[in-house]
Amino acid sequence: MPRTRAYAAQTPRSPLAPFEIDRRPVGPRDVAIDIEFCGICHSDIHQARDEWGNSIFPMVPGHEIVGKVTRVGAEVKRFKAGDRVGVGCMVDSCRTCPSCQKDLEQFCQKGSAFTYNGTEMDRKTPTYGGYSTDVVVDEKFVLSIPAGLDPAGAAPLLCAGITTYSPLRHWKVKKGDKVAVVGLGGLGHMGVKLAVAMGAEVTMLSTSKGKEADARRLGATGFALTTDPATFKKLAGKFDFILDTISANHDVQAYMGLLALDGALVLVGVPSEPAKVHAMSFIFGRKTLAGSLIGGIAETQEMLDFCGKHGITSDVEVIPVEKVNEAYERTVKSDVRYRFVIDIASLRKGG
Amino acid sequence: MPRTRAYAAQTPRSPLAPFEIDRRPVGPRDVAIDIEFCGICHSDIHQARDEWGNSIFPMVPGHEIVGKVTRVGAEVKRFKAGDRVGVGCMVDSCRTCPSCQKDLEQFCQKGSAFTYNGTEMDRKTPTYGGYSTDVVVDEKFVLSIPAGLDPAGAAPLLCAGITTYSPLRHWKVKKGDKVAVVGLGGLGHMGVKLAVAMGAEVTMLSTSKGKEADARRLGATGFALTTDPATFKKLAGKFDFILDTISANHDVQAYMGLLALDGALVLVGVPSEPAKVHAMSFIFGRKTLAGSLIGGIAETQEMLDFCGKHGITSDVEVIPVEKVNEAYERTVKSDVRYRFVIDIASLRKGG
Repeated sequence: MPRTRAYAAQTPRSPLAPFEIDRRPVGPRDVAIDIEFCGICHSDIHQARDEWGNSIFPMVPGHEIVGKVTRVGAEVKRFKAGDRVGVGCMVDSCRTCPSCQKDLEQFCQKGSAFTYNGTEMDRKTPTYGGYSTDVVVDEKFVLSIPAGLDPAGAAPLLCAGITTYSPLRHWKVKKGDKVAVVGLGGLGHMGVKLAVAMGAEVTMLSTSKGKEADARRLGATGFALTTDPATFKKLAGKFDFILDTISANHDVQAYMGLLALDGALVLVGVPSEPAKVHAMSFIFGRKTLAGSLIGGIAETQEMLDFCGKHGITSDVEVIPVEKVNEAYERTVKSDVRYRFVIDIASLRKGG
Repeated sequence: MPRTRAYAAQTPRSPLAPFEIDRRPVGPRDVAIDIEFCGICHSDIHQARDEWGNSIFPMVPGHEIVGKVTRVGAEVKRFKAGDRVGVGCMVDSCRTCPSCQKDLEQFCQKGSAFTYNGTEMDRKTPTYGGYSTDVVVDEKFVLSIPAGLDPAGAAPLLCAGITTYSPLRHWKVKKGDKVAVVGLGGLGHMGVKLAVAMGAEVTMLSTSKGKEADARRLGATGFALTTDPATFKKLAGKFDFILDTISANHDVQAYMGLLALDGALVLVGVPSEPAKVHAMSFIFGRKTLAGSLIGGIAETQEMLDFCGKHGITSDVEVIPVEKVNEAYERTVKSDVRYRFVIDIASLRKGG
């Protein structure tokens, strides 16, 4: 079996560079996938640089994977060669704990098997991500990509899409709800598109006036600058739901003031400092502060089907794999609208 | 019309002392009530001492009122002379805003009329509370006290009861749920009784080993000391719902770690310092931090009916009105199990 070409970080300080890995033989429940596109998630950078302190090297990042099935195991029922499929942040979980039984594999009590920078459920075999030419994944963790979606634009749905779709659904955002999305980046731009498709009236809250035109193009009908203190008076009590995608430290209590009665602010970014919120901010208005982490496999498929129906993909800048390190630098500077996606054909040609 | 005897604070630093007030004539929708008992809520003390900076003097505190109807206005349908009734924290609201329309008068967008230390909806006429012999209240804000409930023990239901019942219901606590109540005081002891009656498996989290026997008598099947760091390891991820009744500053993030998947921690106390909680505490487990404020009038009646059905009252120490200042001192020291209630007969006799 030929080795798999990949791009890997060998240490927290080395740039990503060509590397070879071995994928496992295709087992009875496995799907072998030739990768076409892989998105660059900001968490790829955090982990490749060991900024979360949990990195395993060598590391092949990438959990926004779209490709075509090349082979399936004897027991695989849902896929066949030629199907366009996706793989997201997980490639396995225990399947028996209460979380897995509820289709919430992201909260598997034994710890799900992350697509990279983790191990298979044997807790020994390292996992390698989508900056590679092919991957072998258990059928249960393979998603079907709806026909008609651009495969490069669909790749970020596997992480940025489900990360924003899941809280919108869990907190039951519906037609006519007033929703604010905080931050217009990889997550925020998906949040706007998805909330708009759900029928919500969406306002973008951003630190950058330059994002207004884009926010409106994505479907937001409101825009307010969070650098202007007047925003927090003008919009006080206005929103049923706030999707907070910001990973930089910010004043969460100020945003709580924008919630209406029974409103919820949901964090999907992870600032380094704790949120500081006074009890009064919760009690008057019975408000909720919560968090959400990607989504389960069934809900990820639901999200993909929803995107297929509404023609939603991520706004992407497609790059050859040779530009991955440059793309990392630009991502850190938020210099991308809104997601880099690696064209894995460039890696197949030689990288 | 004879003047109404009351006990009032004239300044933030003066003890409560006899005072006379005038209640309004009974209007067509009014209910006149001879007060039998009035509970002493910790918020009475905060306000009588102007510790929240919003006090109006002279102040007649008291919003846990139980008494008997003496007269009703011509349009009153739900009450007649002789009925045992209650009045809680509110005596009016705008009745037309979205919150009032949803039976959430406590969140009235024009600001509900508090039973004392406030004004009627005209925003001029001061309101005086239940440390008094009688009161006149609009029918809509009068509650029916179920037959069979001890009237002294029922008084604290009007504030401590609804404050703990409402979040248990709103967050859908049900049979078999694992609930923790943090703090065994006026609120906490009601929280335990109500959650147990709803079928939950209740654990008391307390700083005081001396409260264990009482917690178990109230129905808690678990008890853990929050002064012991091992508690936070042993009970990690255990609870579906945590009712946090603590007004002292405490480490809310540590309690978030005790929540199970999709669990909620609800604040009903108001510590002076903001809660500091890291996004990770929310995201892993899709956890919620929220707050709750008393309850609407319809829900307060529902709570009273629930208490009638289950024979639930507050554990009280009944005192004559002359002992109110002493009771304040003891309440501040948590030296009461679990609520002082003034026997208003003592005031009628002369105070």
